[in-house]
Amino acid sequence: MPKIAVIGATTWGITLASVLSRKEAGIRILARTEEEASRVRQSIFKASKLPESFVLPYGIRVTADVEEATHNTDAVILAVPSQSMRANLETVSPFFSKRTLIISAAKGLEIASGKRMTQVIKDETRKEHHANICVLSGPNLAWEILAGKPAVAVVAAENESRARRGVKLINAPDFCAFTNTDVIGVELGGALKNIIALGAGVVDGLGYGDNTKAALMTRGLTEITALGTALGANPLTLSGLAGQGDLIATCSSKLSRNHQVGERLTRGEALKDIEATMSGVAEGVATTLVAWNLAQKLGIEMPITERLYRVLYQGEDVRAAVKDLMAAVAGHELAGRKWNLFNLFRRRKKPEITF
Amino acid sequence: MPKIAVIGATTWGITLASVLSRKEAGIRILARTEEEASRVRQSIFKASKLPESFVLPYGIRVTADVEEATHNTDAVILAVPSQSMRANLETVSPFFSKRTLIISAAKGLEIASGKRMTQVIKDETRKEHHANICVLSGPNLAWEILAGKPAVAVVAAENESRARRGVKLINAPDFCAFTNTDVIGVELGGALKNIIALGAGVVDGLGYGDNTKAALMTRGLTEITALGTALGANPLTLSGLAGQGDLIATCSSKLSRNHQVGERLTRGEALKDIEATMSGVAEGVATTLVAWNLAQKLGIEMPITERLYRVLYQGEDVRAAVKDLMAAVAGHELAGRKWNLFNLFRRRKKPEITF
Repeated sequence: MPKIAVIGATTWGITLASVLSRKEAGIRILARTEEEASRVRQSIFKASKLPESFVLPYGIRVTADVEEATHNTDAVILAVPSQSMRANLETVSPFFSKRTLIISAAKGLEIASGKRMTQVIKDETRKEHHANICVLSGPNLAWEILAGKPAVAVVAAENESRARRGVKLINAPDFCAFTNTDVIGVELGGALKNIIALGAGVVDGLGYGDNTKAALMTRGLTEITALGTALGANPLTLSGLAGQGDLIATCSSKLSRNHQVGERLTRGEALKDIEATMSGVAEGVATTLVAWNLAQKLGIEMPITERLYRVLYQGEDVRAAVKDLMAAVAGHELAGRKWNLFNLFRRRKKPEITF
Repeated sequence: MPKIAVIGATTWGITLASVLSRKEAGIRILARTEEEASRVRQSIFKASKLPESFVLPYGIRVTADVEEATHNTDAVILAVPSQSMRANLETVSPFFSKRTLIISAAKGLEIASGKRMTQVIKDETRKEHHANICVLSGPNLAWEILAGKPAVAVVAAENESRARRGVKLINAPDFCAFTNTDVIGVELGGALKNIIALGAGVVDGLGYGDNTKAALMTRGLTEITALGTALGANPLTLSGLAGQGDLIATCSSKLSRNHQVGERLTRGEALKDIEATMSGVAEGVATTLVAWNLAQKLGIEMPITERLYRVLYQGEDVRAAVKDLMAAVAGHELAGRKWNLFNLFRRRKKPEITF
């Protein structure tokens, strides 16, 4: 019976622990403090995104003691905010054994380094652990998975046998995972889609419709794919469940934190006030910063990301930014030949796929 | 001042006429009968999808007289159901002049022939008209466009200068069109996405969530792209506004007819009863039949289309079909290597694009 430690008493961490506990014993959650652990044990989830009726399944051990959580585990699932991934690893990684599967369940990029989560994990673990690093991603809104609504996910690892181990571990009756070896694509899909989810919140906040949002998502996936491909992702991964799939699910849900940030921006609220009153972290805010920095460095056009960056970090009025984007679209500056996937692919110096 | 005839007093026809009348004079709508024309003139849209408050803009001429409608027009927009396109052309095409732009605004395939709408138009017009044939498509839910919510569209023609003429004609402040020369891809995107919209209705009818629907849409686009590519479409078109964009908008909206059919199927209603009580035509029903016939002929795997075909045309219970699809997914028969875009592309004998 595999023993699994979930690092992070976050909405996603508690969700994964609960789903896994339906088929596995020996699930543990590592909380930040004894006080947080105690609240989770008593199913007190104030200001979290878990449904009010949620009760932590019997048999999950919750602790603030790293050694107790990670002792003799087969797998560690890191369900912490991206910006605290490195700090968490410093605490947790000394307890990894050679066979511990290390699964990142965080969908973001580190601000300071611009790195993906598995890159951060590599930095903070010894070489013998590197082949065991996986990423779990896909269209996985937590509350739906808790409610047992059918969902699929992707487990990616450079080493396919490890991805298969991850899939076996994660698979549950209504939560079905597929393997992939394009770690870069799967991670970037999960992280970059949060930028477009912010945009979807803006679209809804301005009272626009499904046509507008569909156009935003389609063009959004194009610019995500442009950046992702430049960073080594296979564009087909970004057209799959971990790219397009996750983008669609996140942009559809008005409950997502990124969506809420976008919507509140249109009501004239400042970013710092929004963040101060939110439970949990809207990953898209940091991801926009990292992605726009990378895009500039690599010379990639990301018109949606650029406007969101200006709103979030340069205080530009959100309505002015939307107007500017739409004028660019209407002026065909961003349309047709100049801004399509075909040219984005052609621009790449060393295409990594051929058909 | 260009004169435009809209053929078909359908929801989409009336919407396009109204949007065009904001910038053009000389818009005419051809209704099927004098009685229908009279109702439209009086803004009586019983059982249509137009909002109750909608009033036909002043200046649009509505007639049941073909000659009056089509006399001396610069462009004819065909906004009729796909299955009646051929019959409509028989009546209308004798009045086309050499310079008349012929724009198909129908998103379906003809059952009897399996043909796209521009193929049907070619059949029914003289050779001198063929270069003037365009298709208008994209994420364009009619009631949102009427409400002035920003939307983008695509006008495709084999001859790019004609596509540009079409764009100039269609472009309005909140309705912005782009050119494309991949007529096949643009038409197939608009038609085939209706199959997946039926599926989205099933997903909602069964009470599943955004995760499930996002997976359906992602995998749905994969199989649409497989069939489309085999029929000569550029796969990138299907990743664009006229493919993915339209798919997202249509699947998001619970008001779409295809969605309604899917949802009512899960309530145990029979197709013939659903169709008997619907206003207008759910194009996805016929498209599923045509697409599945084409897929079998060409040897394309279309697992979602196949199940919908069995439900619609072979009386299979919708819950049994969903269970069967999910078992196939869980059994990884349809997952991973075997069923991804990469292999679909590789399978093509003559790839028409290279990166």
